[in-house]
Amino acid sequence: MRVAILGTGLIGSSIGLGLRARVEDVQVVGYDRDSGALDVARRRGAIHEAARDAASAVRDADIVILAVPVLAIQKLLGEIKDHVKRSAVITDTGSSKTEIMRTAREALGSHEGFVAGHPMAGKTDFGPTAADPDLFDGATWVIAPSVTASESSITVVTNLVETLGGKPVVMDAEEHDAYVAAISHLPMMAATALFSLGRASEAWPELSSLAAGGFRDMTRLAGTDPAMSYDIAVTNRENIAHWLDRYIVTLQELRRRLVDAEGEDDLYKLLAATELDYARFRSGKVGRDEETDKGPMDIGGSFQDFVAGAWVREKFTEIMKDSEERLAKMDAEERSRRKV
Amino acid sequence: MRVAILGTGLIGSSIGLGLRARVEDVQVVGYDRDSGALDVARRRGAIHEAARDAASAVRDADIVILAVPVLAIQKLLGEIKDHVKRSAVITDTGSSKTEIMRTAREALGSHEGFVAGHPMAGKTDFGPTAADPDLFDGATWVIAPSVTASESSITVVTNLVETLGGKPVVMDAEEHDAYVAAISHLPMMAATALFSLGRASEAWPELSSLAAGGFRDMTRLAGTDPAMSYDIAVTNRENIAHWLDRYIVTLQELRRRLVDAEGEDDLYKLLAATELDYARFRSGKVGRDEETDKGPMDIGGSFQDFVAGAWVREKFTEIMKDSEERLAKMDAEERSRRKV
Repeated sequence: MRVAILGTGLIGSSIGLGLRARVEDVQVVGYDRDSGALDVARRRGAIHEAARDAASAVRDADIVILAVPVLAIQKLLGEIKDHVKRSAVITDTGSSKTEIMRTAREALGSHEGFVAGHPMAGKTDFGPTAADPDLFDGATWVIAPSVTASESSITVVTNLVETLGGKPVVMDAEEHDAYVAAISHLPMMAATALFSLGRASEAWPELSSLAAGGFRDMTRLAGTDPAMSYDIAVTNRENIAHWLDRYIVTLQELRRRLVDAEGEDDLYKLLAATELDYARFRSGKVGRDEETDKGPMDIGGSFQDFVAGAWVREKFTEIMKDSEERLAKMDAEERSRRKV
Repeated sequence: MRVAILGTGLIGSSIGLGLRARVEDVQVVGYDRDSGALDVARRRGAIHEAARDAASAVRDADIVILAVPVLAIQKLLGEIKDHVKRSAVITDTGSSKTEIMRTAREALGSHEGFVAGHPMAGKTDFGPTAADPDLFDGATWVIAPSVTASESSITVVTNLVETLGGKPVVMDAEEHDAYVAAISHLPMMAATALFSLGRASEAWPELSSLAAGGFRDMTRLAGTDPAMSYDIAVTNRENIAHWLDRYIVTLQELRRRLVDAEGEDDLYKLLAATELDYARFRSGKVGRDEETDKGPMDIGGSFQDFVAGAWVREKFTEIMKDSEERLAKMDAEERSRRKV
């Protein structure tokens, strides 16, 4: 099996290391426009050989993995479209999916091999030196098949994800972008704002000396590679702006409760309910598991009702309705595949 | 040396374990109104003996450490004032200091032993089971002497902090509260709002499944013991509200740049400058060190000028002016002490 990895940064090199550690007869060819990163990836053993351009990297590849920031993925799709095999399976690791699906449709036409992907894993350090074959262990890995994707292409990508230790979750591109805006892109923006605010203060020398683990954790995402964060911002702008608005409103409501000396009980309840919910989340109560376990008390109701406004409910109800049939169909396909 | 630790949670028990591991002839007596926590602390070896109330715990103590949330510290000061030795040194570990200084002045009058403190350390787990003798290793530990504190009391608390591995930093209570509002209390509120927002969404089952390390890091402080976060909120309300306002304005400015398709260069510069500053911070460039190392480029100027508004400059200039003389005096005292 010949795998081409375009982009040998943290994610691409981690995939290369993971595949070489877990698959016997794999041959990994890599390409990166940064020849330094390409060289480090080869020396670290993430790839067997370095290609001189994207076209030659993908020419004989059975699987092509585009592991670069979103705008670069869109560019690469144009560069490889005339060189990739008809039988090849093509996937990516971009942080937003709608724009990539659109470009793939334009570039690849009726190609049956494009199945987009997004591993929900990462760390502060980037580049091939930070690569880790176990980076994806236990991580959710979203799979968004193109409308022209064949069943076998979806199976190949699912197997790839599972081989790397990830948990594949099939999702529409639009659904993915709405969700990650809340759970990944908003936190990145919130961290950027929080760090900028402190950093811009006249008192930064004092503030930075006092910064403990809490501030460091809260601002870690401000260290996201700007090439990645910028691409995310411009390709998922509307969803992120929406969640930024909701976040601002939530902070304003929290501020109102903070300064309202009459409503101190209310503030305590809010903090206690949040801590309780957080403890459940932290102990691993996620996904549908969580829903059936409402816990011993739900005292933060009013605040949660406030922040979960009509838009969210409507948007997700709509998304869920659209995707339920599709997901059900995929589940059935998945089950029948597994029997084979 | 007899040390009384009032409050045998994470901080109190970590102090107990740290002292017993590093000081030969120390006798630690503990008290906690939660008899379970007191018992665990004794069984873990954080204290030698458990007292039945605060008054009996402090009666013969040379050092009294109040390691409970801020409002409870204020209450304890009233309970111990008639029982503590005239020669005892009294300190605390509360997260805000101005209110504690006021209460201590009222309760202890001209007692020469009160030197407030705040270790900038913690973790998500709380209670004596999470205690760790090395919790304070390398952590900044703010010391705020009362106006009546003797030089020898300040020395005792400084030595205590250094014995536990902390780095003592002398500061006014008001100055401390202004700084920690930015670097500790605002992040706590920001995490609480971010987690609440996601948790309140109809899509929480999907969102929580997709949550990776970034979201977990960003929301860790939402798991702060509500007894602690509430006390912080109500005793440092004005400073926190101020920083919440600035944070909201910073987020609004970030949103404006995000949706402004004309200003994409601007957005990239902002993200790149923040990442660069963050990398410096993360590599340990903090305090005055950082100031003299401005780094290779400063392209985020306009955004930083925007967020560092007039208030911050004025407030800190004022605070710094007030405290400079005092700090200079303390530095001199510190130097002369070290020579002895």
